[in-house]
This record gives sequence, C-alpha cells and structure tokens, in this order.
Amino acid sequence: MPTYNFSSGPAMWPRPVLHQIGAELLDFQGTGVSIIELSHRTSAFGEVMDTAVRLFRELTGLPEHYHVLFVHGGARMQFSAVPLNLIGRSPRRLSCHVETDYFSLRAREEAGRYGPTEVLASSAGTGFDRIPPVNHEACPPDAAYVHITSNNTVYGTRWAEMPVGFPVPVVADATSDLMSRQLDLARCGIVYAGFQKNLGPSSLALVVVREDLLGHALSETPHLLDYGVYARTGSLSNTPNIFAIYVMSLMMRWIADQGGLAAVEVLNTTKAGLLYSALDRSSLYVPTALHDHRSMANVTFRLRDESLVPAFLARSEDQGLLALRGHFSAGGLRASLYNGMPLEGVEALVGFMEEFERCGG
Amino acid sequence: MPTYNFSSGPAMWPRPVLHQIGAELLDFQGTGVSIIELSHRTSAFGEVMDTAVRLFRELTGLPEHYHVLFVHGGARMQFSAVPLNLIGRSPRRLSCHVETDYFSLRAREEAGRYGPTEVLASSAGTGFDRIPPVNHEACPPDAAYVHITSNNTVYGTRWAEMPVGFPVPVVADATSDLMSRQLDLARCGIVYAGFQKNLGPSSLALVVVREDLLGHALSETPHLLDYGVYARTGSLSNTPNIFAIYVMSLMMRWIADQGGLAAVEVLNTTKAGLLYSALDRSSLYVPTALHDHRSMANVTFRLRDESLVPAFLARSEDQGLLALRGHFSAGGLRASLYNGMPLEGVEALVGFMEEFERCGG
Repeated sequence: MPTYNFSSGPAMWPRPVLHQIGAELLDFQGTGVSIIELSHRTSAFGEVMDTAVRLFRELTGLPEHYHVLFVHGGARMQFSAVPLNLIGRSPRRLSCHVETDYFSLRAREEAGRYGPTEVLASSAGTGFDRIPPVNHEACPPDAAYVHITSNNTVYGTRWAEMPVGFPVPVVADATSDLMSRQLDLARCGIVYAGFQKNLGPSSLALVVVREDLLGHALSETPHLLDYGVYARTGSLSNTPNIFAIYVMSLMMRWIADQGGLAAVEVLNTTKAGLLYSALDRSSLYVPTALHDHRSMANVTFRLRDESLVPAFLARSEDQGLLALRGHFSAGGLRASLYNGMPLEGVEALVGFMEEFERCGG
Repeated sequence: MPTYNFSSGPAMWPRPVLHQIGAELLDFQGTGVSIIELSHRTSAFGEVMDTAVRLFRELTGLPEHYHVLFVHGGARMQFSAVPLNLIGRSPRRLSCHVETDYFSLRAREEAGRYGPTEVLASSAGTGFDRIPPVNHEACPPDAAYVHITSNNTVYGTRWAEMPVGFPVPVVADATSDLMSRQLDLARCGIVYAGFQKNLGPSSLALVVVREDLLGHALSETPHLLDYGVYARTGSLSNTPNIFAIYVMSLMMRWIADQGGLAAVEVLNTTKAGLLYSALDRSSLYVPTALHDHRSMANVTFRLRDESLVPAFLARSEDQGLLALRGHFSAGGLRASLYNGMPLEGVEALVGFMEEFERCGG
C-alpha cells in the first residue's frame, strides 16, 4: 500500500529527489565522498550551490538586483533577522504587519523586540478565515517595512498574489508557497522561506533581498543574522547547510523537469481543486477558509460532527494517509499538498473521505 | 582505490553510519516516509531525538543539571549566542578570552559587539603553536565567563583537558574534539560544538548548558538564540534540523558500538600518534604545533621546501588522499583525523608521505 504524507512540513518530497539522494549518498558524482562529507570550500560543492541559485533565479525570473541567500535557522530565525536588518531604515524603528495566521503573530512579536509595531489589518476576528482587506494609505511612510505571510500554513489561506501599493517595502514570509506557484517576487523587498515545504530539509531559510535593502543592520545584529554578511560571502561566512542546499538543487531540477513553475502550479491547482470540490459537496466536511482566500498548499477543514475526528485520523492512518491533524493552535484537520504530493495521493485521500462519510464515520 | 577524506569539516563519517542512512532513506523504521519527511511533532522523531540526547549523556557522563540543546547555525552562531545569553551576568558586560586560533579570535570579536572583552592569554605571538599559560588570578571575578577553544582546528593545538580554577564559568568551543576524546564537560558552564566534525551534517550546534546559567539573556536576544527557549521547548520552538539530529543519533550509537569514548580516544590517539611519529622522523615534514600541545584531531605541518606543496597536494589527491591543504589563514598542510577516519586512512597517508619524501618530492 503506498503511503501519502500530508504533513504541513517537514513534508513529502518528490520520489525522484529521494532516489537521487540515495543513489549518490556514498559517492557524490565521482568525488569518492558523500555530499555530506564534502567541504563547503570544494569546487564540487560550489557547483551544487551555483546550480541551486541559478535554477531558482531562472524558475522565478528573479531580477539581477536581488540577492539569494541561505540563512541558518529556518523562517522563524528570519522573524528576528528581518527587523534586525531593516528596522534601522525607520527613524522610529517602526514595522507594520498584516496578521493572518499563528506565524504572522510570531513575526510581529519578534519585531516588537526591536521597535514599535503596527497592525495594518487582521483577520483574527473571523478566525483567520481570510486575507483581510488592507488600506495601503494606512501604512505610515516612515515605517521600515510591511510584513505579510503569502500563504498561511495553519489556517489555509493565501494572498492571491504579492501585494502592490504600499509606500514601504513588502517583506513576505513565503515559507509554504514559494516554488509551488508563480509569485512576482520583485514586488517585494524581501521574500523568505523555510526550507521544509518545497525546498529541502529543515533548519535553513532561503532569503531573497533587494540590493538597496542591505546595509541597514542594527549594531546588535549577530554576525550570522546580518544579510549583508551572507551577500558579501556568498552565504559562506561559516559552514553552510550543505545537505539542504544540495537537496534544493535537486528540487529545483525536479521543478524544471516538470516544465517550470507554471506547470507545477497547474498540477497543484488540480490537486487542491479535487480536494476542495470534495469538501464543497460533502455534508460531513466543512472547509474553514473563505472560498476566494483558499490556500492551494494547505487545505483546512473540520468535521461537522467533531466527535468523529479520532476515528477519521485512525482510519486514514490505517490507509497510509498520514498526518491529517490540524495545527495545535487551530484544531480540525489539514491536508498539505506541497510539490512532493502526487495527484494519486489526493485521489486516495478523497476516496477515503467519501468512503468515511458514506459509512457514517 | 579507497578514498580517505582528511577535510577539517565537513569531514569523513564512519561508513556504517552512511550505510544506515542509505538503507532507511526511503522508509524510516517502517513509518513509510523518509526521516527527512517526518514532522518534528511525530513520536518517531521524538524517539530519535531522545536517543541522540540519551546516548550523548551516557557517553560523556553529563550530570543531570546540564541541558543538551540543538541550536541552529553551527558553532559560529554560538559566538553571538554565548554573549547574548551570558554577558548579562556581568555588571559591566565583560567577557574574557584565551586566544589560541582563528576561531577564538572570531568568538571574541563577536562578544565585543555586546560588551568589553579582555584577553587573558594569547599564543598569537608564537603563531598559535601552543595553548598559552593562563594566570587564573588575572581573570576579573566580575566577568561573565572565560571563553576557550578546547581544540584548535586551524593550528592543530589542544587543551590537554578542560581547565579548572577560574573564578567565573568556562565556556568551551569544543567543535573539533567533542566526542573524539574524554572531556570533563562538568568543568565548564557551557560547551558547544558545531556538528560537522564528529556529530553529523553542518549548520547545527550541540550546546550543553549548566542549569543556573539560563535566564540571563539580554532583551535583544533573538528568540532562536535564547538558550532558555531551547531548554523550555526541548529544542522544538521551531522545526529543528531533523536530519542532523537523526545522524547524530547514529553517530552516538556508532561510538557506543566502539566501546564508548575511552575506546574511541584510544583509536584516535593511535591514529594521531602514527602520523606525528612520521612527521618527527622526517626531514621534509615539519609539524607546526609544540609537542605537548598537539591536537589529535587536526595534525598540522608544513614542508621544509614549500615549493613542493602543489606537487604534494596533486599527488596525494591522485592517491585518494583528499583535502590536505591547510586553512587559508594558516597555510601549510593539515590532516584531520576525526572519528570517521579509519586507521587504514592514516596508514595510507603515512605511506604516501614516506614515498613522496623518498622520491625527493
């Protein structure tokens, strides 16, 4: 029986990527050593890193004046690094925030350590079921930046596209949708993403920074949270996360092999569409995000009869459909459909759900 | 022809560890998913992490009142985290340092971002060829801590043992000797080590902290550099470096299988002894560290005729003896002999070196 892992991250990877890791684990491209034993100063690793960055740039169409950095610690470390690097641009160290999820609250909390924060809009009042409307003019022009979360992993909502119209740079946490759909990164000043959804193994972040936003780090910024250090050294000021960057190079190659981001987006739209259709025609399952705000990466729902949740989780596990429990802060159920989840996995899930409903749970 | 990788890190790993990673890459212990696809909230990963910590505690005999933390970013991130967490203990934010290497200079530099620093002793004047004598009484009792580097990767020296007698807690960067020899960690307040020598893949640090040293973090400490956060959450405040912690659990098991740290130390002493003997009886090779200060992990030397270095490096590579070039800041040659380097690798190196010398380079 095949297994499908619907975890919100770490998450299912494309099988060809895992197979390639296995195939060259003991001897990386004839070097005689494993990729994880290779020094970051070798030309073999240099090529891996160059490939990861080059393919990322090609696939996203990233303009030249953006740096691509590999920053330790995942997205959550960027909750600190972003204010440390940018807030000095504001005379009163002000950052603005759009609150759409558990993680956007954490990002604001951390920015609050270094200066005042202002909430431009929030969907907390409606249980984070939507992206709230934002009045761009409410954004003080002396703020350092506006922080958004382009896809909300916990509540399953997403911005239809990267926003325009703010008087200050947009900083987007794109952890759960970067490389799963076409996004105009050049609308933002900074885009960052934790690796463990569509990029590779956990504990690293990809950070895209517009050239003019470097050089404003506060003096108390730790050396390895200063984006300028990463830009100057090509992310090699200390030993980088070699394994993660290697896997990212394979992930980028896999996306290119699918036909690029447009093709991957079509597949992801199909996958999510299949599941949302099933939810919409069901009388047991209730999708939790408003229709026009639905994430394609994280499909959140609940059961009309909540007492059936334990049975739903136990039986789905028995069917090899793993990790469907919602985030602890939101409850309910969630199916995450990142790039590594094949269409067959969603079909299997929908089949199970229909069967579960038909049999009265 | 077997390949032996003498890189200073990332470095050669024990083959059984690599084989086990390969064997369970596609299906981790019957879970149906790869270890790198597993959520950090699963019980399967919980067991991996518990095993890594438990074996580490058993192998080192770490007392109960020390926490074992997995902190993002490697050792260099701790150059910032240590002062951010400890310096608040000193009314004048003073830290003291023993300078023995390139990396100890960087640690002091970073501490200097947060307060004054004092150098208690330095071997800079003799080219870092030794651990300098330290007058414990010169250490101001109102300092927050004394920072040492227990093994110096670049210049190939080491402290014979963890020091005692300072009026303030010792903080030891043990990146290149932790788990390669018996060290009394309980002499220190904090011991930290980047993973990529004897623990696992790069970009993570193991941090051992004495209970009473938590709770002093400066207010500007980023959330994920606050050791208290890691202690409270069991290093799970955000997604940890799952792959690295998994590999560490295998590395600890491998050490246990060898008979523990005492047995590993015997093997490492034999390996280093073999190479140092060859250096000492040669008229071409010149060891660079003073006899009683020699590292067992990083054997540094130079050629009496420096013009032969390119030929030495090219021919050794041809023999599958990789990465013998010294650190860019020190020059010369270096063979790193971490746990993953088998005795046969050192024998092959000595054989090559004798042949190279015999044939006049």
